[in-house]
Amino acid sequence: MKTLNVDLGERTYPIHIGHNLIDSDLLGSVIRGHQVLLVSNETVASLYLDRVLSNLTAFEVATVILPDGENHKNIGTLDLIFSEALTKRFSRNVTMVALGGGVVGDIVGFAAATYQRGTDFLQIPTTLLSQVDSSVGGKTGVNHRLGKNMIGAFHQPIAVLIDTDILKTLPAREMSAGLAEVIKYGLLGDVAFLSWIEDHLDELIAKNPSVLSKAIEHSCKMKAAIVARDEREHGVRALLNLGHTFGHAIEAHLGYSGCLHGEAVGTGMVLAARVSHVMGLLSESDVIRTVSICKRANLPVRPPKGMTPNDFLEHMAVDKKNIDGRLRLILMHSLGMAFVEEQAPMAVLDDVLQACCH
Amino acid sequence: MKTLNVDLGERTYPIHIGHNLIDSDLLGSVIRGHQVLLVSNETVASLYLDRVLSNLTAFEVATVILPDGENHKNIGTLDLIFSEALTKRFSRNVTMVALGGGVVGDIVGFAAATYQRGTDFLQIPTTLLSQVDSSVGGKTGVNHRLGKNMIGAFHQPIAVLIDTDILKTLPAREMSAGLAEVIKYGLLGDVAFLSWIEDHLDELIAKNPSVLSKAIEHSCKMKAAIVARDEREHGVRALLNLGHTFGHAIEAHLGYSGCLHGEAVGTGMVLAARVSHVMGLLSESDVIRTVSICKRANLPVRPPKGMTPNDFLEHMAVDKKNIDGRLRLILMHSLGMAFVEEQAPMAVLDDVLQACCH
Repeated sequence: MKTLNVDLGERTYPIHIGHNLIDSDLLGSVIRGHQVLLVSNETVASLYLDRVLSNLTAFEVATVILPDGENHKNIGTLDLIFSEALTKRFSRNVTMVALGGGVVGDIVGFAAATYQRGTDFLQIPTTLLSQVDSSVGGKTGVNHRLGKNMIGAFHQPIAVLIDTDILKTLPAREMSAGLAEVIKYGLLGDVAFLSWIEDHLDELIAKNPSVLSKAIEHSCKMKAAIVARDEREHGVRALLNLGHTFGHAIEAHLGYSGCLHGEAVGTGMVLAARVSHVMGLLSESDVIRTVSICKRANLPVRPPKGMTPNDFLEHMAVDKKNIDGRLRLILMHSLGMAFVEEQAPMAVLDDVLQACCH
Repeated sequence: MKTLNVDLGERTYPIHIGHNLIDSDLLGSVIRGHQVLLVSNETVASLYLDRVLSNLTAFEVATVILPDGENHKNIGTLDLIFSEALTKRFSRNVTMVALGGGVVGDIVGFAAATYQRGTDFLQIPTTLLSQVDSSVGGKTGVNHRLGKNMIGAFHQPIAVLIDTDILKTLPAREMSAGLAEVIKYGLLGDVAFLSWIEDHLDELIAKNPSVLSKAIEHSCKMKAAIVARDEREHGVRALLNLGHTFGHAIEAHLGYSGCLHGEAVGTGMVLAARVSHVMGLLSESDVIRTVSICKRANLPVRPPKGMTPNDFLEHMAVDKKNIDGRLRLILMHSLGMAFVEEQAPMAVLDDVLQACCH
């Protein structure tokens, strides 16, 4: 097992990465109170709930199984958690445990941020995407019908338990979605890591355990370092949104159920690369390299059929990364060197979208 | 104008107390961005909205008018704010302004805590209760059908503007509800202040401006000092809940619409005094003094007709101040010296409730 720390002063917490962690004593040892609200979704619960529960016999445990999918990431679903916690009369000393992917982690984290003004929560991410990205850093929240992740809070977990063996049961499409975020770390800040991913992409897709562990560790290390520098996204943390402004527009356009988050981010990174190219920053070959790695990871590299440039602009204008209505994008000076463009030229954006939409 | 500070490191903020502050430049000067979401309720808006708006012409302003009353303090009402902010495409740099009493302040504060993971917010409390208590300290939230204030966050305002002239239009019943919290400060930590209140209660009820200002200043000073010592209620801040565990039970029993919060707290303080007496802490004359000051402030000193001891216990067991299911109460060693009783004897509680319920 490897342990990384997210250094946030009194909110510092460990990320434990290893094999069969959900069967280890670690699970019980990080929980501080004696009440546990374990939240999962239908798919994950059928595979792993019993194993986790069998490690929590020392606690008073209640379980909530959420419906599966991003389209359930809303205030209504949140209420399932609140109602169960209140019915069980759980105090503010309850620990909420998120056993699932990014959707479960975001919802449970936000429930923990707001139940009785804040309880402990523990992340047990079960998808590659949540293991390398969303479980670390304390961003929690739900979608609003008028925008993705518009309602939320920064609320750090007490620990993140990454059990890499769980990925054995992860569908290939979900693996690809997770690889999008792994690739993102290479593109945004580490071109050597990008090359390493290119060299090991087939093994990653084939779930080679040691290669996968290395990718997860390196991704978490990069995420932890960025979050430690800028917990509340006043600066450098924004780079983690590479591909996400376009991605969120795609997800919103498809009603949060037509694609996986990582798939939308894959397309979004390609669009960000193209905008960077038209602005004279990235070379044509850099764009091709970006497209190629995303394609090899089985990610979509063009917007969904029928989605127009106007659809993009409509959804991007309410993206919460926009400061005061100006169009803010994460672009790249070069591969491995992303930056925040505060006022992206609308003409360039329009050109790229016109060329890519179909 | 007097200014007090709530000392919370980087979250330190001023409480400005004075005459006609809503007409002063102060209002615009504390807002950092250029977008403002001004939220009020029907009653307050009809009296003060135009005056506040006329001071915000330099900003992009949207307005949300909430229905009046504690029974609207829920997630559904919160969505009126989110929807307006998203429709106006307000960024995370918006400042939400709460113009109203405790209900408006709590809802708007929670909206600000969670809109795009946190925006600035400014409190302009318009009732005595919110001026002396709820606008200071960053407790925000909404009720759940299974418990009061069960969903919320700690989110400090950027400033609190207390315009004492606004109280001129406050109904007598609301004045009494506010006086309950003023009396609370005397009972929980300052017996000299309690005596001062007794000496000036008629002037307070008559809204004598200088006496009222003094009561507000002293109350805010006590609140600010306690919050600065214990922002997240791990210790001393719990004393501010004197009378509130009983009070919340009364409010829940009446469905959050049958009484004012301050009225329930008045009854709750009397019950806390009685429990303290039966436990051998307060003298009979201390109880009589507590009952007398509440009565003089026109507060109810007995539970609502028909509310049984079982009704109390049922609602108190889910009160969020209870740690892990034990019955936790704020009691008094003596008048002006409250403490946290972690395990109140159920027999004493039952005796007092049996004697007081009717």
